[in-house]
Amino acid sequence: MATMRAVQVSEANAALELVEREVPTPGAGELLIKVEACGVCHSDAFAVTGGYPGVTFPVVPGHEIAGTVETVGDGVDWWQAGQRVGVGWFGGNCNHCEPCRRGYLIQCENMGIPGVTFDGGYADYVVVPAAAAASLPDELSFEDAAPLMCAGITTFNALRESGARAGGVAAILGVGGLGHLAVQYAAKLGFHTVAIARGTDKEQLARELGADTYIDSTSSDVAEELQKLGGADVVLATVTNAEAMAATIGGLAPRGRLVIVGASMDPMPVVPGAVIGGNLEVAGHASGTSMDSEDTLAFSARAGVKPRIETVKLEDAQAAYDKMMAGDARFRMVITTS
Amino acid sequence: MATMRAVQVSEANAALELVEREVPTPGAGELLIKVEACGVCHSDAFAVTGGYPGVTFPVVPGHEIAGTVETVGDGVDWWQAGQRVGVGWFGGNCNHCEPCRRGYLIQCENMGIPGVTFDGGYADYVVVPAAAAASLPDELSFEDAAPLMCAGITTFNALRESGARAGGVAAILGVGGLGHLAVQYAAKLGFHTVAIARGTDKEQLARELGADTYIDSTSSDVAEELQKLGGADVVLATVTNAEAMAATIGGLAPRGRLVIVGASMDPMPVVPGAVIGGNLEVAGHASGTSMDSEDTLAFSARAGVKPRIETVKLEDAQAAYDKMMAGDARFRMVITTS
Amino acid sequence: MATMRAVQVSEANAALELVEREVPTPGAGELLIKVEACGVCHSDAFAVTGGYPGVTFPVVPGHEIAGTVETVGDGVDWWQAGQRVGVGWFGGNCNHCEPCRRGYLIQCENMGIPGVTFDGGYADYVVVPAAAAASLPDELSFEDAAPLMCAGITTFNALRESGARAGGVAAILGVGGLGHLAVQYAAKLGFHTVAIARGTDKEQLARELGADTYIDSTSSDVAEELQKLGGADVVLATVTNAEAMAATIGGLAPRGRLVIVGASMDPMPVVPGAVIGGNLEVAGHASGTSMDSEDTLAFSARAGVKPRIETVKLEDAQAAYDKMMAGDARFRMVITTS
Amino acid sequence: MATMRAVQVSEANAALELVEREVPTPGAGELLIKVEACGVCHSDAFAVTGGYPGVTFPVVPGHEIAGTVETVGDGVDWWQAGQRVGVGWFGGNCNHCEPCRRGYLIQCENMGIPGVTFDGGYADYVVVPAAAAASLPDELSFEDAAPLMCAGITTFNALRESGARAGGVAAILGVGGLGHLAVQYAAKLGFHTVAIARGTDKEQLARELGADTYIDSTSSDVAEELQKLGGADVVLATVTNAEAMAATIGGLAPRGRLVIVGASMDPMPVVPGAVIGGNLEVAGHASGTSMDSEDTLAFSARAGVKPRIETVKLEDAQAAYDKMMAGDARFRMVITTS
Repeated sequence: MATMRAVQVSEANAALELVEREVPTPGAGELLIKVEACGVCHSDAFAVTGGYPGVTFPVVPGHEIAGTVETVGDGVDWWQAGQRVGVGWFGGNCNHCEPCRRGYLIQCENMGIPGVTFDGGYADYVVVPAAAAASLPDELSFEDAAPLMCAGITTFNALRESGARAGGVAAILGVGGLGHLAVQYAAKLGFHTVAIARGTDKEQLARELGADTYIDSTSSDVAEELQKLGGADVVLATVTNAEAMAATIGGLAPRGRLVIVGASMDPMPVVPGAVIGGNLEVAGHASGTSMDSEDTLAFSARAGVKPRIETVKLEDAQAAYDKMMAGDARFRMVITTS
Repeated sequence: MATMRAVQVSEANAALELVEREVPTPGAGELLIKVEACGVCHSDAFAVTGGYPGVTFPVVPGHEIAGTVETVGDGVDWWQAGQRVGVGWFGGNCNHCEPCRRGYLIQCENMGIPGVTFDGGYADYVVVPAAAAASLPDELSFEDAAPLMCAGITTFNALRESGARAGGVAAILGVGGLGHLAVQYAAKLGFHTVAIARGTDKEQLARELGADTYIDSTSSDVAEELQKLGGADVVLATVTNAEAMAATIGGLAPRGRLVIVGASMDPMPVVPGAVIGGNLEVAGHASGTSMDSEDTLAFSARAGVKPRIETVKLEDAQAAYDKMMAGDARFRMVITTS
Repeated sequence: MATMRAVQVSEANAALELVEREVPTPGAGELLIKVEACGVCHSDAFAVTGGYPGVTFPVVPGHEIAGTVETVGDGVDWWQAGQRVGVGWFGGNCNHCEPCRRGYLIQCENMGIPGVTFDGGYADYVVVPAAAAASLPDELSFEDAAPLMCAGITTFNALRESGARAGGVAAILGVGGLGHLAVQYAAKLGFHTVAIARGTDKEQLARELGADTYIDSTSSDVAEELQKLGGADVVLATVTNAEAMAATIGGLAPRGRLVIVGASMDPMPVVPGAVIGGNLEVAGHASGTSMDSEDTLAFSARAGVKPRIETVKLEDAQAAYDKMMAGDARFRMVITTS
Repeated sequence: MATMRAVQVSEANAALELVEREVPTPGAGELLIKVEACGVCHSDAFAVTGGYPGVTFPVVPGHEIAGTVETVGDGVDWWQAGQRVGVGWFGGNCNHCEPCRRGYLIQCENMGIPGVTFDGGYADYVVVPAAAAASLPDELSFEDAAPLMCAGITTFNALRESGARAGGVAAILGVGGLGHLAVQYAAKLGFHTVAIARGTDKEQLARELGADTYIDSTSSDVAEELQKLGGADVVLATVTNAEAMAATIGGLAPRGRLVIVGASMDPMPVVPGAVIGGNLEVAGHASGTSMDSEDTLAFSARAGVKPRIETVKLEDAQAAYDKMMAGDARFRMVITTS
């Protein structure tokens, strides 16, 4: 029986360990994917800590997967061996819960999550439900595509579904793993693009990525600066600092929306009297489905959006994870298998 | 020169005093309205306390006005003397600020507010910009129409623009001046209608008004009860208690929305991590324009939605105001002039 | 092996014949439903004539099915024997074609249709994909529920997704099997409801069903009459006469929409220059999914919307079909099995 | 009294004649604009032929105006002399008709149109309602900005309001005055951009402008070609050939929309049965308001969208008009005054 390398966490908060495992076999409706690259995402901590419903140890993290279909399980005739695919947070939907029946696939009550509720992409191979896979355009390398499967789709999809229209103002709060992609997406979608970060270290990069305006939140009043531009039609919060999020609400244009993709558990103070007059909105946004991923990938290839990545080998997963958690990734760590 | 009675506040927090004033003359683009009825709204406190930008004393409160056009100012040929009209929070738009030019009239930067930034309806006559007036259907009495000009439009418009669709679940937080109308609107719009209030005193009334489900927030977990129904597609918060608002977020269905019309200045704690997975939204909603009022009035007349009111004479305005502020109105105080 | 009665068409345009068949066995992911009632829809002609892709003879027509779950196939644990269910045009989705992956379930490229691409409800029992079933509220009888599974959902869903808002004007073109339900839905959704039909025969009925205005299209200019009301925010065309549809476009309000559910193959003349100024829309609308059916059923039960039906026995299916095709049904023929 | 040059049409279908006129004086709420450049649009024929409601002769055509504010009329304090402005089809709104009161400014029932219902931009100076003006970004020259005031806003606004989302497929029917801008907008908005035109002459240009795919409608089945791409999420019809428009409907993706901006009076055949299954839409789209223009200009400046123009002097207006009407403009004629 064939074996493979995998990086697993054997119990809550244990170290990432490189182990040898049997190559898994895809069941009915599943795919076996040869992993070429897998991004390291802050949400991998859900697996490492076990702090997410449905984690069972040992678990292989990784939900920013890019690779090729190796074999298809029974009943799957819409994917073929050899196809280039990506898999993200969306681990396939059940098609029978109420959200699925309403077409809200990303809210599937039975959705698995690669690298969280089942073994993910820190390995040579991974098995996923066929419904989880997205087709990868040839123009994108595996390394560049991997981070788009979570950091990319999350920000792209949140922006295009925000209700803000081209020609308006989009502000990106945070210029990190998600933010450095969000700035590019906002710029390429035709928004006057504002990058907001702490300090001035990231200003030059933000401008290179397409930001028209940079706000250093440590030295300016963010809401005031946004209002000088007429107000933001959308603020996309990629950070997890709830106070920093709340500080942008006063910078929204009438009918503007603060969209949150940074999963903080700290309460964000929203003042009712401050959101009524302008019909302002504060909304969470889950990443997206496999088709949202395909749209993200197509747009990225077309518009030239690329993550800035640092690649590491599978055996260096722990170091990559640590660097990412420390906020030192510039700007996305990607594990490659070869 | 003709005189009239008016109830004014001469300085911040002064008593409401009945005075004799000259009947005002409408300028160009304005209307003189003979007031027949004027509702007493919690927002009248903005005038009484002076705690709203643009209040100058003395001021005549009142922005739930129903009456007839007495005379029209220069240049106004689309209203005629004798027409039945209502005027609410929307005091006319400037047509040249950016929100106006975008068609967001209720966000007009130069919008006046009757009874707040200019003299309102606690009087025999009132002058308003012609743009502020809404046509009143014959089927509605002045007394019944008055509260619809603010409490009515605010809740009706918020519900119909909430994105929730007929056949879904709408929950109304609070069964008071606004809430007792919101329950009726939700029921008549075809929602499974939930009324949420403290204690059981209001249960019978809520059911009479059309509520299918009643939740006593002092004895049940509101979010849990809502989830038993599949989750609320919209929660309309008519109260000003920010904690009570926040407690409903967990009761939203996927893609549900908490719409706030209760202008509290207390921060409401919104947990980012709790709104992302379900694409949940928290949104403020300003009342609406004169056409939104016409839609509200037309719907109310057609569907048989009526406020429960207690009418008082102009000279009893203080008592009516006090009763409303004490939360003892059952459910809307309306001042009549004859 | 158990047998049952079924009404089948053995070849294109053959007569409906009552035959004895084996009770079918549900496969994996399927349900066996004991049919209690099945509506007779104009689209049953697709089966009778074989004029729809995917029809194979013999075929049992019927896609307005109401009954109870008899047994569940392998892997189906979200339905249980004894549950009251309905099935309509939506015969379940594949969950892997592009529209499914986008959440556009009703556009599934592999969707079967009961009574068209597989055997339907003109029988004692029917097997359907579990994904096709909708839960039936206890308040609705099987006979009343059956027509809601196609005529009901189609019109209700088209109206609620039309973009028209409560308080506006909705016009229903045609007062027949679909139209007599559409008038009720429009009225109960709070629209000023206009019924448009040929002649005056249906005026009284239309008013009983909730129409506020009736237009006899043989004696009035429909567009002109609609404009007297300010224009229709939505016209729902339930007829198949393309000229009659086109004649309503001039009656739309700015940003109004003509929604078509009557599947005519005659070209409808739409004049570009007549739809630009008002941002007018002409749109087709497919019925809806199983959840749309549940919303339809819930709304109908709540608001008291009922079809007007004539019930017949299984052995009289031919007569019922002929009556429907002749336009003589008043207003929906329903086959009952007991 | 100061005089100026103007090109006028003295009666229906008369030649364009260069005349001397008094410089007009702006009334209350109006602006006097020094015209620097004015585009020549197909809709100028409405003035020349008198075939539009409200034309009175003599009339000065021109509704693609770029210039500077010379003086402001009484009551206008939000524009100042010296500001760079543009004016398009939208000639200001009345703020009191029903569409205005609903915020549908472009549907204003009393909207004037520069160069059609009042004298336009084929002159040294023009007077317009202040509500008609849009601010011109410094990055855009007057010559480049002029065509954006009608050809630009019309196509940009139609695309961004089409409901199609970035990452999808947008097809532009026609590569002329409007189409050559539409192709650029679609490309810069992140759509897979398809240009459709007759023959192969325009293929190279279309690709230079950003088209990913080119379809020669004389040698291919347009609908079939679009379906090879998965279907178009939006087709924008910039031509006036109704049959050519109709031929694209079969090329729409599920929930796709054909948006029409080419004001043909020939009926376009839309088959009801062909639009129902996919929830397809056919919609007209009026250009847009002054803020839509500002968004268009901001986007164009930011994304580098420029019209391809040929400039002519005021005295050559007739030749420019003739060339445009003959379809020989490459791709927009622009009259300059200096």
